[in-house]
Amino acid sequence: MVKNKKDTVVFFDTTLRDGEQSPGASMTFQEKLLVAQQLAALNVDIIEAGFPISSEGDFESVKAIAQQVKGPVICGLSRANTKDITTCWNAIKYSKKPRIHTFIATSDLHIEKKLQKTRKQVFDMSVNAVKLAKSFCDDVEFSAEDASRSDVDYLCSVVEAVIEAGATTVNIPDTVGYSIPSEFGKLIATIKQRVKNIDKAVISVHCHNDLGLGVANSLAAIENGARQIECTINGIGERAGNAALEEIVMAIKTKPLFYPVSYNIKTKEIYKASKLVSNLTGVVVQPNKAIVGVNAFAHESGIHQDGMLKDKRTYEIMSPQDVGVPESLLVLGKHSGRHAFFKRLKDLGYKLEQNVMEDLFAKFKLLADKKKCVFDDDINSLVEQSVSGVREVFTVDYVNVTSGVGVIPTATIRMIKTVKNKKEILQEAACGAGPVDAAYRAIDKITGVTVDLEDYTLRAISSGEDAQGEVNVKVKYDGATYLGKGMSTDIVEASINAYVHAVNKIVIMRGGKK
Amino acid sequence: MVKNKKDTVVFFDTTLRDGEQSPGASMTFQEKLLVAQQLAALNVDIIEAGFPISSEGDFESVKAIAQQVKGPVICGLSRANTKDITTCWNAIKYSKKPRIHTFIATSDLHIEKKLQKTRKQVFDMSVNAVKLAKSFCDDVEFSAEDASRSDVDYLCSVVEAVIEAGATTVNIPDTVGYSIPSEFGKLIATIKQRVKNIDKAVISVHCHNDLGLGVANSLAAIENGARQIECTINGIGERAGNAALEEIVMAIKTKPLFYPVSYNIKTKEIYKASKLVSNLTGVVVQPNKAIVGVNAFAHESGIHQDGMLKDKRTYEIMSPQDVGVPESLLVLGKHSGRHAFFKRLKDLGYKLEQNVMEDLFAKFKLLADKKKCVFDDDINSLVEQSVSGVREVFTVDYVNVTSGVGVIPTATIRMIKTVKNKKEILQEAACGAGPVDAAYRAIDKITGVTVDLEDYTLRAISSGEDAQGEVNVKVKYDGATYLGKGMSTDIVEASINAYVHAVNKIVIMRGGKK
Repeated sequence: MVKNKKDTVVFFDTTLRDGEQSPGASMTFQEKLLVAQQLAALNVDIIEAGFPISSEGDFESVKAIAQQVKGPVICGLSRANTKDITTCWNAIKYSKKPRIHTFIATSDLHIEKKLQKTRKQVFDMSVNAVKLAKSFCDDVEFSAEDASRSDVDYLCSVVEAVIEAGATTVNIPDTVGYSIPSEFGKLIATIKQRVKNIDKAVISVHCHNDLGLGVANSLAAIENGARQIECTINGIGERAGNAALEEIVMAIKTKPLFYPVSYNIKTKEIYKASKLVSNLTGVVVQPNKAIVGVNAFAHESGIHQDGMLKDKRTYEIMSPQDVGVPESLLVLGKHSGRHAFFKRLKDLGYKLEQNVMEDLFAKFKLLADKKKCVFDDDINSLVEQSVSGVREVFTVDYVNVTSGVGVIPTATIRMIKTVKNKKEILQEAACGAGPVDAAYRAIDKITGVTVDLEDYTLRAISSGEDAQGEVNVKVKYDGATYLGKGMSTDIVEASINAYVHAVNKIVIMRGGKK
Repeated sequence: MVKNKKDTVVFFDTTLRDGEQSPGASMTFQEKLLVAQQLAALNVDIIEAGFPISSEGDFESVKAIAQQVKGPVICGLSRANTKDITTCWNAIKYSKKPRIHTFIATSDLHIEKKLQKTRKQVFDMSVNAVKLAKSFCDDVEFSAEDASRSDVDYLCSVVEAVIEAGATTVNIPDTVGYSIPSEFGKLIATIKQRVKNIDKAVISVHCHNDLGLGVANSLAAIENGARQIECTINGIGERAGNAALEEIVMAIKTKPLFYPVSYNIKTKEIYKASKLVSNLTGVVVQPNKAIVGVNAFAHESGIHQDGMLKDKRTYEIMSPQDVGVPESLLVLGKHSGRHAFFKRLKDLGYKLEQNVMEDLFAKFKLLADKKKCVFDDDINSLVEQSVSGVREVFTVDYVNVTSGVGVIPTATIRMIKTVKNKKEILQEAACGAGPVDAAYRAIDKITGVTVDLEDYTLRAISSGEDAQGEVNVKVKYDGATYLGKGMSTDIVEASINAYVHAVNKIVIMRGGKK
């Protein structure tokens, strides 16, 4: 355990890179910027903004984040080759604090089966990659992929060599989530002990959650000398995801005697970050998720409620306010004016152009006409929807849907198709298994884009009979999955909006670019 | 670490007790039986079936499980007093293997603030409770609530005294999820070392997940000598829940060198247990949940997919089939006959009365008319719905709902009210913010039961445009929360069914019993 005066653990958030690799969690350009801004508000030390070589879209969003997001280091990922590293640099160089993150696998399994190389070749590639990265910028991170399954002697030799070559952070990933805390803590202690020049770099860890131990392994690493934690909001990421940022921070905060380290995270921004990432990616947070689950601070049994009334400490080890859970959610109604609405937007942390705010106000008034109380969550959704940045080729103009028991569900829909300022009015009717199915069939006829509906979820954004419903659909088109989101007090309308949102993405991404 | 020949770790499942304390997760009598049967199929060693003194309903369900569920030990919870323990015994005595579980808090905070007693009084109550329990049955478990925040000398003295009094299992709960693995492992090692008669009892742990460490703490306890793990399916439970059974079992299975213990769990039943508990409680499993999340075995990035194709071991540490994830989900269609359907029911592990099967077949045919493919998940939902056991006071007879863009959402509903075989036909129409809101307002008028809608979720049970939607609603009535579930290919109909399901629960539970 660390005994000297408090070191700082830096938080490296990879929600926009590893997190976005969650199936179906891909975000648009504007959505990524919104998440990056919130990560800056949360005061994470490093934002891994993406993997620039992987697609043109990723390159553009990393570049925009580097240009626009102030505060954190902006990092891009690259494999250990010239093209990846150069492309990465070209995306991140706009940041005041750029970092190149280069990686290659060091386990024999990956070296032999996946890379089909020798240990010597991988060793040389690692050193050369770091040298090249260093020629572009001072801040260079190297990751030994699958480190926890690598031969420890070889791993130590690679780590020593990349530090010698200029790496300022050396990351030890548990890529497949195969480690357990006692084992992983020992690995970090070994590296700290055996790598001669280890004091010239920060030891980082990147733990996956396949056995439910991502957070525990990260904490064991801190106990043994790691000072950078790679993690994501809500623990999203490949497969069972990454270590959850919010759980690690709150464990450090709650147990200072065991983790005598400081951190820069503003914990009161956790709840908002969690909501934003969940809303934009469509990856739900289970009610029993630690820290940010809706039940995390709820006390159900009579015995517990009795204890809470006598002394909160009996059943509560941290306060919901510490992580920014709002005490009261009620805000605005249909009598609220422009001034109150703009003030609320500002209080919620949004910095928006005047014309965007006016547009949001108009949408707010429409919403306030339909429901009595407009909650913060409703406003957050309005903002997220309006900045998600999908240009609309198809817009819905008229809908009439009839369904019931003993009624054949039928939908009549009219849409406007806008291509290069040319508008075309199209209308169709269809029957279906239910009102939504009927509407989707009518839309398919109109757009001519036939997709497979893979997943459909709907949840109430706020509470009450007149709550807004938010529909997330995942549709498959030509091998890729697209997320569509729609919102309304009318679930059929919300379902239609979500479907049209996804179809517009397909038409723009597939029809526009390629 | 344990070095001798493999001990067995026994699994104590408390999904039906602590799990049911998740807000809004309460289950009906029939639903609890269904879960208990699946826990028996999963081969858990002990089922904590409930807290018999807490309500008449809990008493009856514990009794029924003791009477009907064969295999596991059936356990009931009781505080450390005569009435609780006697009532507990009266519920569990029908089991071939009954266990009384009695508890009292041992931390000074709980003793002084919640119990308002002295350490000496709590010590005596503990011993007396165990002696009384022992007079009823041999198998007695004692829990020292809030053990991880208790004075360790006092805790050891209580543990020694209750073993002397006859406790065969001593449980060390981390009640508020405040411990971390290194600390909690040390506590278990201390108890094992310092309690003289500890070899006469099994050390158990019960870890909550407030810092995301429930599973890691349980595993640290196994490393230090604990041989019973208290846990729940999907990790549900008070606040952020309990340690997840599936994560602990799979960690032991995947890391035999670190956890050289055996277990009796049939891991291939994990997936089904997870689905069942999630469906019945309405507590969703997040996609990135370890082991049972829908993405737990999904590989998104190109690099990972490439590795998987070359050698699965590059990114997969266990096989989805190990936990019973079905390889193909497609089963039946509208041409499937009675024989095929009954066989599928049997293959899915259901043992049902002939008349129940016939009733299910009729429902299956109705469903198969509406959707092309009927999946296992659809069939599971049909069974769960039909055995959930809520008698229907109100049934829906006719529905016509119209909505759209530029249309005032309107619902016309006719219902039949059945009280003591007397039928009454009632009909109403209402407008609303959307088709569901309109329908709910019409139903409120008909039933005269006014509830607050607290939460509404809808998800697709299977995939495709004609997938069935399952709606879960949580409604508040007179301070209590009721879960309603409804299913249909038509989301408006599913929403109506869920609402009526909840209202019927209220009428029966509040109007019938009291």
